[in-house]
Amino acid sequence: MKYDVKDVRLAGMGRQRIEWAARQMPVLAQIRKRFAKDMPLKRQRVSACLHVTTETANLAIALKDGGADVVVCASNPLSTQDDVAASLVKHHGIATFAIKGVDHRGYYRHLTQALAHAPSMTMDDGADLVTMVLKERRDLLPGIIGGTEETTTGVIRLKSMEAEGVLEYPIVAVNDADTKHLFDNRYGTGQSTLDGILRATNILLAGSRFVVCGYGWVGRGVAQRARGAGARVIITEIDPTRALEAVMEGFEVMPMSQAARVGQVFVTVTGNKGVIRREHFAAMADGAIVCNSGHFNVELDIPALRKLAKAKRPARPFVDEYLLRNGRRVYLLGEGRLINLASAEGHPASVMDMSFANQALSAEFMAKKFKKLEKKVYRVPLEIDREIARLKLLSMGIAVDHLTSDQKRYLASWQEGT
Amino acid sequence: MKYDVKDVRLAGMGRQRIEWAARQMPVLAQIRKRFAKDMPLKRQRVSACLHVTTETANLAIALKDGGADVVVCASNPLSTQDDVAASLVKHHGIATFAIKGVDHRGYYRHLTQALAHAPSMTMDDGADLVTMVLKERRDLLPGIIGGTEETTTGVIRLKSMEAEGVLEYPIVAVNDADTKHLFDNRYGTGQSTLDGILRATNILLAGSRFVVCGYGWVGRGVAQRARGAGARVIITEIDPTRALEAVMEGFEVMPMSQAARVGQVFVTVTGNKGVIRREHFAAMADGAIVCNSGHFNVELDIPALRKLAKAKRPARPFVDEYLLRNGRRVYLLGEGRLINLASAEGHPASVMDMSFANQALSAEFMAKKFKKLEKKVYRVPLEIDREIARLKLLSMGIAVDHLTSDQKRYLASWQEGT
Amino acid sequence: MKYDVKDVRLAGMGRQRIEWAARQMPVLAQIRKRFAKDMPLKRQRVSACLHVTTETANLAIALKDGGADVVVCASNPLSTQDDVAASLVKHHGIATFAIKGVDHRGYYRHLTQALAHAPSMTMDDGADLVTMVLKERRDLLPGIIGGTEETTTGVIRLKSMEAEGVLEYPIVAVNDADTKHLFDNRYGTGQSTLDGILRATNILLAGSRFVVCGYGWVGRGVAQRARGAGARVIITEIDPTRALEAVMEGFEVMPMSQAARVGQVFVTVTGNKGVIRREHFAAMADGAIVCNSGHFNVELDIPALRKLAKAKRPARPFVDEYLLRNGRRVYLLGEGRLINLASAEGHPASVMDMSFANQALSAEFMAKKFKKLEKKVYRVPLEIDREIARLKLLSMGIAVDHLTSDQKRYLASWQEGT
Amino acid sequence: MKYDVKDVRLAGMGRQRIEWAARQMPVLAQIRKRFAKDMPLKRQRVSACLHVTTETANLAIALKDGGADVVVCASNPLSTQDDVAASLVKHHGIATFAIKGVDHRGYYRHLTQALAHAPSMTMDDGADLVTMVLKERRDLLPGIIGGTEETTTGVIRLKSMEAEGVLEYPIVAVNDADTKHLFDNRYGTGQSTLDGILRATNILLAGSRFVVCGYGWVGRGVAQRARGAGARVIITEIDPTRALEAVMEGFEVMPMSQAARVGQVFVTVTGNKGVIRREHFAAMADGAIVCNSGHFNVELDIPALRKLAKAKRPARPFVDEYLLRNGRRVYLLGEGRLINLASAEGHPASVMDMSFANQALSAEFMAKKFKKLEKKVYRVPLEIDREIARLKLLSMGIAVDHLTSDQKRYLASWQEGT
Repeated sequence: MKYDVKDVRLAGMGRQRIEWAARQMPVLAQIRKRFAKDMPLKRQRVSACLHVTTETANLAIALKDGGADVVVCASNPLSTQDDVAASLVKHHGIATFAIKGVDHRGYYRHLTQALAHAPSMTMDDGADLVTMVLKERRDLLPGIIGGTEETTTGVIRLKSMEAEGVLEYPIVAVNDADTKHLFDNRYGTGQSTLDGILRATNILLAGSRFVVCGYGWVGRGVAQRARGAGARVIITEIDPTRALEAVMEGFEVMPMSQAARVGQVFVTVTGNKGVIRREHFAAMADGAIVCNSGHFNVELDIPALRKLAKAKRPARPFVDEYLLRNGRRVYLLGEGRLINLASAEGHPASVMDMSFANQALSAEFMAKKFKKLEKKVYRVPLEIDREIARLKLLSMGIAVDHLTSDQKRYLASWQEGT
Repeated sequence: MKYDVKDVRLAGMGRQRIEWAARQMPVLAQIRKRFAKDMPLKRQRVSACLHVTTETANLAIALKDGGADVVVCASNPLSTQDDVAASLVKHHGIATFAIKGVDHRGYYRHLTQALAHAPSMTMDDGADLVTMVLKERRDLLPGIIGGTEETTTGVIRLKSMEAEGVLEYPIVAVNDADTKHLFDNRYGTGQSTLDGILRATNILLAGSRFVVCGYGWVGRGVAQRARGAGARVIITEIDPTRALEAVMEGFEVMPMSQAARVGQVFVTVTGNKGVIRREHFAAMADGAIVCNSGHFNVELDIPALRKLAKAKRPARPFVDEYLLRNGRRVYLLGEGRLINLASAEGHPASVMDMSFANQALSAEFMAKKFKKLEKKVYRVPLEIDREIARLKLLSMGIAVDHLTSDQKRYLASWQEGT
Repeated sequence: MKYDVKDVRLAGMGRQRIEWAARQMPVLAQIRKRFAKDMPLKRQRVSACLHVTTETANLAIALKDGGADVVVCASNPLSTQDDVAASLVKHHGIATFAIKGVDHRGYYRHLTQALAHAPSMTMDDGADLVTMVLKERRDLLPGIIGGTEETTTGVIRLKSMEAEGVLEYPIVAVNDADTKHLFDNRYGTGQSTLDGILRATNILLAGSRFVVCGYGWVGRGVAQRARGAGARVIITEIDPTRALEAVMEGFEVMPMSQAARVGQVFVTVTGNKGVIRREHFAAMADGAIVCNSGHFNVELDIPALRKLAKAKRPARPFVDEYLLRNGRRVYLLGEGRLINLASAEGHPASVMDMSFANQALSAEFMAKKFKKLEKKVYRVPLEIDREIARLKLLSMGIAVDHLTSDQKRYLASWQEGT
Repeated sequence: MKYDVKDVRLAGMGRQRIEWAARQMPVLAQIRKRFAKDMPLKRQRVSACLHVTTETANLAIALKDGGADVVVCASNPLSTQDDVAASLVKHHGIATFAIKGVDHRGYYRHLTQALAHAPSMTMDDGADLVTMVLKERRDLLPGIIGGTEETTTGVIRLKSMEAEGVLEYPIVAVNDADTKHLFDNRYGTGQSTLDGILRATNILLAGSRFVVCGYGWVGRGVAQRARGAGARVIITEIDPTRALEAVMEGFEVMPMSQAARVGQVFVTVTGNKGVIRREHFAAMADGAIVCNSGHFNVELDIPALRKLAKAKRPARPFVDEYLLRNGRRVYLLGEGRLINLASAEGHPASVMDMSFANQALSAEFMAKKFKKLEKKVYRVPLEIDREIARLKLLSMGIAVDHLTSDQKRYLASWQEGT
């Protein structure tokens, strides 16, 4: 078996941590159990490009138990947990190509190696595999029945492909399942982004002026948690409806040009590029802390920051000090990579339980239905989405109400009046 | 001019309060100004069945300024502000049929009178006018070009009609505009429901066990405000995804049968019927306070409560004490009618500004486009929705960011990688 | 019996509302029951100058049941509930001198009438009775054994008297009991101040810029509730430690001169005078809403506002519009009187339960111990304070832990190490 | 110079991190600057037993700059940051005795070594040095002029000593300064406790049932932050007034026996011992996570947990799995040591800035005034406390209001009325 991990001897700690995560992923555990019996992924070759974390390990194991031949590569140069990669190789026989801190070339080499597996399905977190297939490995297209995509960013890119008519196989947009984006994006990224900032800096959030760029699901999560930690939260947005929602939640809303002058901590979570730019870095107060929790680090214009600086040095692990020509210091965290994965452990297992249950069931759906699907981006089927919510609640021991027959009738009728 | 209001001499106070509301409705004010110039509703006869409040008065005036011949009747027996009804008649020459506390027969007589106007458009809050047209006044159908609907409850009913093929003219579902339901339902009803409860009872919310039945947009608003007032909030739901969201927000979620035993204050906001039923009333602790802020009072099974009781007496204005056979007392607020309108003043003007801007612009849209529309329920056009958000932010003096051309390009492309 | 109330015929509604409050005052109810048996206030003549509300009525009744000969007058010209005053006279035979909206002369005439009762104890809310005794009725001093004081403001004044050596009899500072100020000032005033603002204005709090002047117990309560209602809260303070606490809670802190320009709603709760002055009114934006929830309306410099204005007219009940010479409008609520009593019903009964339990037990304490007390301001004895907390929790059905003997030993020792 | 640290070669990273902390300690920086000029601690020998963190390093440096001859030892076996200890030795020439994870014997050996310095002042965090002096090194007493104490726990112990008449020199209770306990205990421990739990477990807090044992300043901080992270927070208390405050804040309050069955995560912060005992561990659900953030790990009865278990194994770093005889698993974090120091970095520097400004100024106060002090526990002088708040606000660029002469007069008088 070919693989590329940092050190296989880290596998012991990796296994321990994979098991710890497993305990908090009861929905995926149930799916895995059924998969092992039904083998719905038999004969499928899956290349998965995901953050190589304890939760992803549990997904890969479930896919394998479902009959798939799985390889894994990293979807971000800084997000790999080396002990987990080692355990996947050693204890689970899953070929893994992922090393934390790999450089740009190494990163793309891992993708190439994952595609060398000749997948029948791609599993993406940011659409890197499907992009590489379309650009460099079109020879693989005949063997590919479909794929899945985990992130908002990836779904935007895939829909561009669909709109341009260049998408060559069906994709299930896992991100758009309610049980994915309402939870993982909001509560998962919300918590883990703050976690990443604290591990990197150990600053006091209470009383700090904390700027969140973007008020989508992730931005809401980050804003809510930052406020919950006592920060005074400022939002920047481009969409007036979202901006208005932020105002009504009691947040301050202002343009980036103004926020740059006021903020002490900045987090970008927009899915766009160049959100914090040259003019913004130049306007920041001495000591400003800047990071990104969106998929790509292009949210920050790091080249512009470099040009503004006359010196750069490490201040703490995952903290680089840029001494600007104006005499002020700006601290960049985790090289602008997703801070929740760069300096913390990414989303808690409990929330990834639902996201990856969607992945596993979407893979099964693809294996069964691919013949009926077009070269489009599909939503996760509603039954799957609902069922995951039901199972999750059940695993928490929480019961909900059920419609009485009387109530069902009422909702379907229009004749009952005031 | 025919009309039916409590006392025209109340008009002075009504005018004062209508003007107060106007000051907080800058978006509607701008539309009104343009309407007065363009007269887009010329030759339209509008019958509007809405809560007769200061905000509705401002909408009616804007429609009239836009050229429409408007009559107004009440969409709920307890929500009319008699001084406002008087001012509409006296100062604005708008025929109004609405008296607070009117009985069931009087309520329907007012609807009949509003339809006697032979409208070309209906404007509904709960689908009562369209229902009456379909059931009793089909003769009016040839003259009707379309209508609008304000509420979740009404939209559910209208979609049932559409599904059954009985809807006879196009409807714009104002409720479904983002600038309506994200704000009015959540922040408007959230605040005004608590306001209604406090005016009726003057209880301390801090430390109380407060049950919110339903976690839709209205439920979220009520839950958020109740927590903001220090209450310990309990949610009941039927949808597992929503229930899970409530859990993740830190609320307790449990079935109604259990909540009935734990709660001290109960509010229903589901759009369904029989949410609090016989078995629930019977299980409540002594002193339980029960109210509804959903559209219809059928959310509470009041007949069942009456049967359980051996005595009933008023405890305060808008508070009825039911002494149950089990010796415990249950307090019903506002006869189960929308508590925010029964004992308070309904939504604040600032939030109705957006809802009614949607109404006014949807009426204009209908007048212009009705020939191209089918007998279906339509969403408010997205341009209208966005424009309202933009104007509202502007009126608050809040600026947002704009996409750079570089960013627009990035969002549309799929080629830029990690 | 002499008395001065608005209309004795309002007594029916008053009685209903007094009973409603009684249901939420279980601690006072227990004390009243014991008082009726033990008669600890036998032969005491009590003149009570308090806000004449349903809760005060329940206190007065408890004192009477304890054997006292009680008269009541109002501690604020705008806080009287006329139906309650009527019921005190008619159903309880308690001489009451209180009419809502009485003028300055009438207000002081009522105080004079209350002192004509020749009290052995004064019960104050703002130190008005004791001040009048010291200034005008020193002849009563020989008959007075002591008094109680309810408010922060009153305690400040009484401690000034003590410091100047002019206090002539012992006072129990009810305000300083934990079960009073931690609850009544914070949760009671917090909720009821917002309630008062909403009843007066019906504005949307979500998204508003809400300035709280003063971050003492009352200020904290108001700030917490305003934030809970979705407002963006700004604090002004004079004490740096308190200001720092506000910052750490995520509030914006700024001087009044700056807050005046930013805010939309202003509430003073400082216990001081001239907190919002000429220069502040002049700097406010058009439409600013100003009110006070501190004891005296001198917190606002209303004469200065009048001078700045070229016109004044009512905009709604309890809302006066001042049109300033600079063309902007400022809205003053409730003539600057405590807004929670002017336009709402004051503190909820549940929280006054503890405050008035302190009053009743402090009166008993005074009756028993006055011979041992000096002409000083005393704290409520700690046993009383604790006991009230215990009874309140009990009435809520909430249990707490108790120290084991092992734990008691541990807390008292210093020998057990790391 | 004698010292005992893990590895002097770690000094480089330690220095970097000490400097990072220094940037967030502007008040201490100002004091240090003055100390270097005035040398107020000249001829003082200080033995400081504190958590050896980056913040403590900054305090030690300031004391040294003030003229003191300082040695440092650790106040907890698990809280030492080895790189910081190394840097103190290597770069600052401060003798340090502290190794993370040292055993019980090693811990006390370090204390002994710190006292071998023959201090004129002790600086304690938990009263360990003063206890050892009283028990084992009474020979040092003649040379000791006084000491300081940092924690609630230590102050309780020292007051016991004072009450028993065994305290032999004056102590300044730094903990009781407003600028210490209102901030450090609440915001510092609040944030860092959650930080410690997340680093140890990476669990999702949103939706979890989170039990906080103790509702003092630390408990309030932890509860507030846990709620801010989306948890459903449950409080246990022994004091009824505090319990009632927790209820009014919307928390659930229940006895430990009940909370043990409901909770998923448990944190003790009481300053007492045996808060979670045998019967509580036995009642916990499978997967319960238990930790302590109070000073001593005796808050948890770990010996009882060991007896209940049939197996124990590590689950992750800082997480031990106890498999109980009842088949359930309980996870103990950081061996029950202060979790914010065991698995995270302790309080953020910004909050320790104020705590340690109090320490430095209290040492100066002691050096100047010791002759006038008795063998008692003293509060930090109010001028010091206020001045620190003022400087901190100033460093944040936040201004507050100042009393006008008119207002000062008003507050001092009692003659101005309603």
